[in-house]
Amino acid sequence: MNQIRGKQSIEFENPPRIISGASVVGKKEGEGPLGHLFDLVNEDPMFGEDSWEKAESTMQKEAAKLAVRKAKLEEWQIRYAFSGDLLGQLIATSFGLKEMQLPVFGLYGACSTMGEALQLGSMTVNAGYADYVLCMASSHFGSAEKQFRYPLEYASQRPLSATWTVTGCGAFVLGRKGGHVKISGITTGKIIDYGVKDSLNMGACMAPSAADTIYQNFMDFDRGPQDYDKIITGDLGSIGKEILIRLLKDQGYDISGQHTDCGLEIYDAKTQDTHSGGSGCGCSAVTLGAYILDQLAEGNWNRVLFVPTGALLSTVSFNEGQSIPGIAHAAVLERI
Amino acid sequence: MNQIRGKQSIEFENPPRIISGASVVGKKEGEGPLGHLFDLVNEDPMFGEDSWEKAESTMQKEAAKLAVRKAKLEEWQIRYAFSGDLLGQLIATSFGLKEMQLPVFGLYGACSTMGEALQLGSMTVNAGYADYVLCMASSHFGSAEKQFRYPLEYASQRPLSATWTVTGCGAFVLGRKGGHVKISGITTGKIIDYGVKDSLNMGACMAPSAADTIYQNFMDFDRGPQDYDKIITGDLGSIGKEILIRLLKDQGYDISGQHTDCGLEIYDAKTQDTHSGGSGCGCSAVTLGAYILDQLAEGNWNRVLFVPTGALLSTVSFNEGQSIPGIAHAAVLERI
Repeated sequence: MNQIRGKQSIEFENPPRIISGASVVGKKEGEGPLGHLFDLVNEDPMFGEDSWEKAESTMQKEAAKLAVRKAKLEEWQIRYAFSGDLLGQLIATSFGLKEMQLPVFGLYGACSTMGEALQLGSMTVNAGYADYVLCMASSHFGSAEKQFRYPLEYASQRPLSATWTVTGCGAFVLGRKGGHVKISGITTGKIIDYGVKDSLNMGACMAPSAADTIYQNFMDFDRGPQDYDKIITGDLGSIGKEILIRLLKDQGYDISGQHTDCGLEIYDAKTQDTHSGGSGCGCSAVTLGAYILDQLAEGNWNRVLFVPTGALLSTVSFNEGQSIPGIAHAAVLERI
Repeated sequence: MNQIRGKQSIEFENPPRIISGASVVGKKEGEGPLGHLFDLVNEDPMFGEDSWEKAESTMQKEAAKLAVRKAKLEEWQIRYAFSGDLLGQLIATSFGLKEMQLPVFGLYGACSTMGEALQLGSMTVNAGYADYVLCMASSHFGSAEKQFRYPLEYASQRPLSATWTVTGCGAFVLGRKGGHVKISGITTGKIIDYGVKDSLNMGACMAPSAADTIYQNFMDFDRGPQDYDKIITGDLGSIGKEILIRLLKDQGYDISGQHTDCGLEIYDAKTQDTHSGGSGCGCSAVTLGAYILDQLAEGNWNRVLFVPTGALLSTVSFNEGQSIPGIAHAAVLERI
């Protein structure tokens, strides 16, 4: 069977399964609408460490170990880890995964990294290169603000278009047997640049890439919105959501009935003061682990298009006046 | 056929071929011992741009386009790009690959990224997910010094253990037919930390990971040094080379007859004032493109173990007192 679909997609011959998922989050996420669903809510934003970066690494370590335990496996049975984060040179991942002594593929797709990890992980399992792989992504409000914005002590005001970086790590073990959800296909994203330069409106930066990947998924699999129970983007927030829906309407597809965004699910924007919504690699990762997989397992949804979205910038590129391109990587999740 | 070998390796059933390679470098690399072998030597360190980062992106774009042209393909025929660099949030890659409009997997393995890209690229082609993929990695002396060290204008003195970041990008098209070199197997590296904290002695930070990956390759494929014409690490430099050879001797393997290091091949340390040697993602990438592939194609070597090596640090982790772990990803290259 030729598994290549259209221009950017693969339909797996032996769809890998998500056999376990672990979600570790911070206090604010624990207070949000999905709070009761996370595996671990840590009230200490430092996770017992002395820096934001070490806190994020510890969060990765906890999530990875928990995912392996929930899969009823030993660490040595995991053949590869696919993981990434938002920090320069992926230090949350390097120091988070060090102790587990697994072969590691470090990934960077900004906040789309969870999608990238699931894609490469499922390609690996489907091809028979591994019985089990670990796919993971994290972000931390403190380390991200320090990396990209101003010191928290400044208490800078944020425009309403800004999003709130999720403190969270989602880790997933993929394998051939077990679990209630399979990854039946993937659509890998291109870098899409509409020239938006506002780093405090990341939804607008990423929406075009989400639209491109979703459109391409429809083309490659000969599907439309009605073929999915839900189409769930990563962290577009309320402004990005509007743009996405409008862009796809222009292409002849109305996804307003199916669409939601992890950034809108994870916080209650009104009471939690998160403005446009949640963001960060961890946003889609923990929403997948805590909410999306559950809805699929319980049979409330049968097929979901999961589309983590990333804004490709650094403070250097931003300060040098470059635009902020986006990328979005989709995975088709189906109830078994 | 079960393609899994031992703990960390794959032996490919349909070994992907490197059907073209392109190497684009700066002036200093052009003046080195391999200078006459590079495809393009740009005398302008800015590559016609107004920042080091844009220069590196332009270098990626030039190398990618040249590799595709040398493979006698059109850009649309490349199904995926696997690429990375050293800059925070991979901006050299994001802005370098934007124009080509390919599905992109952004990778970060520090200076081992060329190995990581070849591994994921060859896994993808071997599994039948793509006819052609592009694998690429770059570094730039100016952007790396700005990212990791001091402003060049300070003219800081460097210790003799320091290496010199290569300005260069290597790009490779993998496919099923053509070319003179196949990737017969891979050994994916673990994160190895001996607790070294000296960021001006990266060879010492990375040597343990190179030793670990090479040792694991010997175990997984039931081979020894004598089974390779050359064992070529990425950028250990002269100090790292010594440590690597000693570590493997302790394990019962003497690779001193087979070993060389791209960082030692690319510059003439005595006349070019590069101290311990060359480094950066581009170091192993352009040495592969200009030198290693040629030696294999000409039949001077039949089987090479190519082992790009990476030091996992950021200025943040370093300044917070963390150690500098290493990672090394190996590819077995064979003459067809």
